[in-house]
Formats: sequence, structure tokens, C-alpha cells
Amino acid sequence: MTAKEGDAYDSPLFYLVMQYAHRADRDVVGMVSGSPDWDPPAAVRDGLREYADGEPADFQYAPSEGLRELREEIAARRNVDSDRVVVTNGAGEANYLAMARAMERDAGDEMVLTDPVYPYYPGKAQMLDAETVTVPVATDGSLNLDSMRAAVSEDTACVVVNTPNNPTGAVYDRESVAELAALAEANDALLLVDEVYDHFDFSGRFESALTLDSENVVVTSAYSKTMAITGFRVGYAVFPDALVEAAKTRHMLVNVATSRPAQAAVLRSLRETPPEYYEAARDRLRDRIDAFTDALDAAGASYTEPDGGFYVLARFDDFPGTLDNVKTLIDEAGVAGMPGEAFGEAYDDWIRFALCTPRADDAAARLADYFSASDD
Amino acid sequence: MTAKEGDAYDSPLFYLVMQYAHRADRDVVGMVSGSPDWDPPAAVRDGLREYADGEPADFQYAPSEGLRELREEIAARRNVDSDRVVVTNGAGEANYLAMARAMERDAGDEMVLTDPVYPYYPGKAQMLDAETVTVPVATDGSLNLDSMRAAVSEDTACVVVNTPNNPTGAVYDRESVAELAALAEANDALLLVDEVYDHFDFSGRFESALTLDSENVVVTSAYSKTMAITGFRVGYAVFPDALVEAAKTRHMLVNVATSRPAQAAVLRSLRETPPEYYEAARDRLRDRIDAFTDALDAAGASYTEPDGGFYVLARFDDFPGTLDNVKTLIDEAGVAGMPGEAFGEAYDDWIRFALCTPRADDAAARLADYFSASDD
Repeated sequence: MTAKEGDAYDSPLFYLVMQYAHRADRDVVGMVSGSPDWDPPAAVRDGLREYADGEPADFQYAPSEGLRELREEIAARRNVDSDRVVVTNGAGEANYLAMARAMERDAGDEMVLTDPVYPYYPGKAQMLDAETVTVPVATDGSLNLDSMRAAVSEDTACVVVNTPNNPTGAVYDRESVAELAALAEANDALLLVDEVYDHFDFSGRFESALTLDSENVVVTSAYSKTMAITGFRVGYAVFPDALVEAAKTRHMLVNVATSRPAQAAVLRSLRETPPEYYEAARDRLRDRIDAFTDALDAAGASYTEPDGGFYVLARFDDFPGTLDNVKTLIDEAGVAGMPGEAFGEAYDDWIRFALCTPRADDAAARLADYFSASDD
Repeated sequence: MTAKEGDAYDSPLFYLVMQYAHRADRDVVGMVSGSPDWDPPAAVRDGLREYADGEPADFQYAPSEGLRELREEIAARRNVDSDRVVVTNGAGEANYLAMARAMERDAGDEMVLTDPVYPYYPGKAQMLDAETVTVPVATDGSLNLDSMRAAVSEDTACVVVNTPNNPTGAVYDRESVAELAALAEANDALLLVDEVYDHFDFSGRFESALTLDSENVVVTSAYSKTMAITGFRVGYAVFPDALVEAAKTRHMLVNVATSRPAQAAVLRSLRETPPEYYEAARDRLRDRIDAFTDALDAAGASYTEPDGGFYVLARFDDFPGTLDNVKTLIDEAGVAGMPGEAFGEAYDDWIRFALCTPRADDAAARLADYFSASDD
């Protein structure tokens, strides 16, 4: 069950597929990337404009750990002490800081990951010289707690999970995550919970791991998806008290600080964006998922019905989720997805489709046409 | 000659001094930080405004290695192939990528640094588990090549220098840097040249290490100082062909990409800002240095006359550059500088003053008053 981390590290398959789709000699509905295609909140744009009119001093270094007011807004929303918050260059850096901290604690050098897995996790693990152990999730996408218990040991530095999950769409229930936190505590390991899709819970069951109030849990997130600003790189990590200072030091030594125009825009948006913005984004996504899965039903394909996040996994008979098959779909059906094999072995029969396009129903119709024609 | 890297890593002295000055019960001229107090180019502000009006797609991930057009602008100015350019979260990340790459090459685990040294270098070295060897510069601030030759060996992973130099103000001549590149080549090491003050050369002698065209040289820089936007975090590294892909991978795994509004603003500024902007910034700084050093002359203090950069080092009789003495100057003279001991041992008798204030002449007059009163 060793992750194929070399793939993730050496060649971002994601970019390869995007490039292939871009060069295709036909119209292709792009469903590879999880970059929102909808508008960011108006307050993000206003925040940038306001920032552009600022004094010279506003253009200089923000505090290394993030603008004080931004950290306080985050802390108030997450119901934690603002001292525990580090504003990072997106969830990507937040996850890096947490995994690096886990390795530096000298309490194990293994990372326990799920299969399927977001490829950046094994990539970061390899970069940090960690061993990786991957644990297949249950067939419904939920955590297989027995397997997790068997995998976590004194050698474990960090258990890494993501909920709502990319790519499965699973939302882990609070009890399962609590069980992982207890496992981490019992084995002197950290539990890293990446909650970057927290605003896209369709199940109503999502609860942040911060509510567990564990000294072994690090929670990360970002505004990339929530505010449709993946390019801004404003995320954060909430560390336990005992670990936060060292994380701040690494953040300072790697990045000095997070880009200030982006922080200022996010701060204004947190203050001004009404709940309706987030609801509309969630509703839009749910509508797309419904249209896409209806067409998949019509095509007789299997698929995962996501409880959260941006993605539907679909499986077509005798058509495993390899890079070659994904290229075939681009060329012959005009739909680009991500090969399931990019996420490990558990879902390598599947193809991931990101609902970040207004043409999700077109895409599903094309897939239905393609596979019914192949059946003839 | 071991660096006191623990200090730099654990407690950023810089912040301590700023905080102390901020809390002082009197007016203090702040000369601690190298954050420009002057206006960024108008095109930076315009670039942010233009970006704020963009399409949703403009708010999403930039390419991991940086916006293509920005990399091409940088490459054209530095006369290198744009494939060698990685746009980073400031020079801070650029230096981190270079030093991490040097360690990963498995060709030594020592970093050879100068004394005095910019404290982030030993901090990063410690974070990367490198041994550090520090080599005092000559009394005029120039590189002591004999000592460098003695320090560089097969154990050397990386030689790190900064020109124009912080804190000495030295501009290393091309021959000295070429000698370091040859030393790096002979010992299978990298030479990292941080050129972040390249637009602030008063000597006319500065030449980029990129002109050496060595397979062992990495050059880093940023727009932080050049465009007075330390808060934007837009920098870059130019790697040799053989090393650039691995550096891009680390950049992706740590930060995914650099913040896009900041990249867009810098791109517009590179295209539109006239040479007069940069000349005016240089002239302003030179005027301040002249006013400051004239007053130091009047006070009978020793000081370094910078050939480049933002800083003057001054030495006062029987008043070494300790943190305690710096605090005394804040409280009793109303001038805040950086303790020379923050940069190593070679200049621990000195205090560094950043010319990032319009009140440099006031500060020098206050210092003159204070020290002439102490003499009585």
C-alpha cells in the first residue's frame, strides 16, 4: 500500500492533462481543474482597489504571521485564539508547515495518507523525507477506521486527511475524525485536517476538527475555493499552542510573509461578503452536480454522489481511469477529466470530473453519447 | 567562526527592536527596517486596479512557476532563458529554494556565509539542517577571498553572498564573485548570489553574477526594494538549467504558486515604469546617506560609506552594537538602529542604520548631540 509518490512529485499529472486538453483539435469541456469559474465576492475586488489607493507604508511587509485584523477575523470565525493562527500562502503552504512540523518533532517519520489521496500530500511527504503509508478508504468514501488503526503506530509523524474530500466528495463524520485525533494522541503523532472545501458541504454533517480541541490536531484551510480566488494564495493553519511558534518561524524563514494586497482583499471580503454569496456558490455547484449525475444515470455509468466539494467520480464499463483513457475521452468525447490513477490505486477505475464549468450538463451528454456509441 | 544561527532562528531580533522602539515613551526616528518609506511606481497601483476589474479566470491559479509574461520580462532584463526563471514569494522564498536545492544535491552539507551576514541565511541553513561556516569580510567590507578559499571544501553545499550588501553596503567586484563561482565549481557546490539591492548601486561597479554564466550559480532578486513593495512578495530565482526543474517542483509543493494580484501589478510596472523612477529612488537614498554621514562626521563617529544598498554602519567610541546599547539609543537619543551583533561578530561594535526615513538628518543630529553630551 505504498503511495506512488514519485509520480506526484516528479510530474504534476494535472498540468499534463490540462495541456493535452488545451491542444486538442476540437471543443473540449474542461473538468480537470478545481479552479472556480464563478465570480469572487465584490468585496474582494473592492478590497484590492482600496488597497491600491493606500499609503506607501501599506505596501510594505505585513507581519510575518499575517495581518493582525485578518488573523482576528479568522480566529473569531473558527472560535480559536488568534495566537494559534498563521496566515499562509494558501492551504498549500499551510499543509507544508504542518507536515514539516510533524517531521521536526522527532516522533516518527511516517505519514499516513488515505487512498485516494490529493497528490500534493505524498509529494510534500517525499520532499520532507517522510515514509508514506496509504490506507484505502471504504467503498462509500468514508474513512476505514480499522485500517487506519492498523496503520498508525509509534512511527507515525502525521496522519493527513481532507474533508470534504477531494476527490471522493466524502464528508467525514465528527466521530471518525475524533477517532483519528485520539489515534494521533495515543501515538504522539499529529493529525492534519485540510478543510479547504468547508464551505461546500451539501450534507449538513461537516464539523471542523477544531471543535475537537486536541493538542495533536492542526487544521488548515484557505479562501481559494470559498471566495473563488485560487490565485490569491491566502490560506491559514491553526496550530495547537505548543506548536504554533515553530510553525511561524518556518513560515518566516521560507516566505517572510504572505502577499499583502491579497490579505487586504480577503480581510475586506470577510467583513463585507453576505452569507448569500456562499449559499449561491454552493447551490450553483449542487445544481451542476445534479445535471451531471442525471446524465450519467442516463448513460448507465456508476458515479459517486458527493456530500461536499467540487468533484464527481465516474466509472464507465471496461474503461479504467488511466491517463490514456482520459486522453481518449478528450479526443473522442470532448470532455477532460482527471485520471483516477492520479489519486492512488483505490479509485484507479474511476475518472474525476470537476464541476467548475457551466457546461457540466453538456459534458455529461457527450459522455453518454460516447459510451452508448461504444456499446453498439 | 560558527554563526550564532540559533539567535536568528529562534527570535527575530529585528522584530524585538522594532517593538521596543514602538513602545518607547518618546519620539523615535526608526532606522531599523529596510522597508522603503517612498511611494511605489504609479503602475503598481494601476496594475492592481486593472487586475481588480478582471474576469473570474484571472483570479485563479497563475502557472506555478509564475505568469508567463512576467517570467519573459524578467528573463529579457536579465538576459537569460525564461525557462530558468522561477517567480517566488519574494527573495526570501527564492533563497530558500536555492539553499534547499544545494542540500538536496548530496554534494556537501555546509553553507559558507560571510560575517557580517543577513540573519535569514543562517536561519534558513539551520532549518535545512546545514552546518554553517562563517568567513569575516575584509575591513572595507569586501570579500576576503583567501579566507573564502580556505573555507570552501568538498563539504560545501552552498556559498551564500549578497551584493550590494546588507549590512555593509559593499558592492562586490565582478572578479571576486567570479572567483567564488570558480571555487563553487571546483568543489561541486552552488554559489547563491542575492542581488535584491541591485537597483541601489551608487558605485557604478555592480555587475550581476548572471553574467558569469556558470552552471553552479543561482541568482535571486525581488521587486521588494526596487519598487518599494516589500509587502507584495514578488521575487525570483534564476537557476542553472540542470537545477531549475527540481526548484520549480519544490516551489509548487511548498507554495503552489505566487500570489497573482501582486504578480500582475509587478508585470504592469515592469512595462510602464520609466527609468526616472528608479533613478529618483537611488538619488533620494544617496542624499539621505550624505546628510546622515555628514552629521556623523560632525559627531566624530566612524561609519561605512555604502557603495550600494540602504544601510550605513556607524561605530561610536566605547559603545558596541549590542541590543542593550541599541535600546539605550532609542530611549536616550530617540534613534532606533539594528545591533551589529545581529549580523555576526565581525561588526558587533557597529550599529546599522537603515536610510528608509525622511528624517535621517534629524537622526544623525540626535546621535551627534547624544554622543557629544556623553563625552562631557
